[in-house]
Amino acid sequence: MKLLKDRILKDGKVIDNRIIKVDNFLNHQLDVELFNEMGKEFKNRFANKKITKILTIETSGIAIACITAQYFNVPVVFAKKQVASNLTTDVYESEVYSFTKGKLSKIRVDMNYLNPQDKVLIIDDFLAHGNAVLGLIDIVNQAGAEVSGVGIVIEKGFQKGREVILSRMSVQIESLAIIENLENGQVVFAQ
Amino acid sequence: MKLLKDRILKDGKVIDNRIIKVDNFLNHQLDVELFNEMGKEFKNRFANKKITKILTIETSGIAIACITAQYFNVPVVFAKKQVASNLTTDVYESEVYSFTKGKLSKIRVDMNYLNPQDKVLIIDDFLAHGNAVLGLIDIVNQAGAEVSGVGIVIEKGFQKGREVILSRMSVQIESLAIIENLENGQVVFAQ
Repeated sequence: MKLLKDRILKDGKVIDNRIIKVDNFLNHQLDVELFNEMGKEFKNRFANKKITKILTIETSGIAIACITAQYFNVPVVFAKKQVASNLTTDVYESEVYSFTKGKLSKIRVDMNYLNPQDKVLIIDDFLAHGNAVLGLIDIVNQAGAEVSGVGIVIEKGFQKGREVILSRMSVQIESLAIIENLENGQVVFAQ
Repeated sequence: MKLLKDRILKDGKVIDNRIIKVDNFLNHQLDVELFNEMGKEFKNRFANKKITKILTIETSGIAIACITAQYFNVPVVFAKKQVASNLTTDVYESEVYSFTKGKLSKIRVDMNYLNPQDKVLIIDDFLAHGNAVLGLIDIVNQAGAEVSGVGIVIEKGFQKGREVILSRMSVQIESLAIIENLENGQVVFAQ
């Protein structure tokens, strides 16, 4: 998606060979106009799928998931990372290892909000090692629902996320920008 | 806002005299269509204000803020509760006491995303004791920006949030539903 790639080149800050910071429009300040263009693009790429629900994970996925949901006319459910005092005990639970934070954390979805009839589009901001998406897929499977697709804003093509996910299941993964490498402070996109 | 009040009556679960759970449409599963109606209503109520930015706090405020931002054509910034490994040290910082969690936590906004020219609409899901909003106001003040209004989805009118905020500054506070009490498992709205 050219608009997104141009924005990454303009505002992304390459921290090192593995990390690019896009706080300016994606993770801290949110460019909702750009998100709408991304939402339309996700709708185009999954036009052949009958989606009933969008699933994401707090925090950074929520905004993108909600704007995207407008083009699918479906509700969003987000997996919670923290135990809320008023979250029921009837939850689907999975574990996600975060390389950024260097720790394993539990993610949970209330059983009321996913059911066997659901056709789920998983949306997230980044795909790197694939752990967050695998945790979300695990939760969809526990609910007996179908994973209809995975929509990612920025994929780090030099990490193994896509490969790991596809080794577990056959699913359509669509990334709006795939970064091939970040060496020497330069962003190189995959063709 | 009648649509929201009806939904609270239909799907809200009164936990005790102080707590109502609206996970079904506001805090865990997100009814994006309803959020759009709320966004339009916020735009109506703050129609006289020239807003340049919407500020909220993770997690629950983000979705509402983003959908609302579409009606104001402005970006969203959300205050972060957790220290991200790649958040710069140049941040505005405040402290928020959460009664739900029983602890004090820091919230932070990167200095790049609020500036003295900004006219800020603060958006949050709940107004109870007012601590989250006070923390956000503190951050806007640190940036030398203007707090143009506070938009809340559900206000607990039986707690002191509104009073506390108005004792500190004169600001337009708009709540889409004000709950007067939750006694005996019943939701009673303020007139």
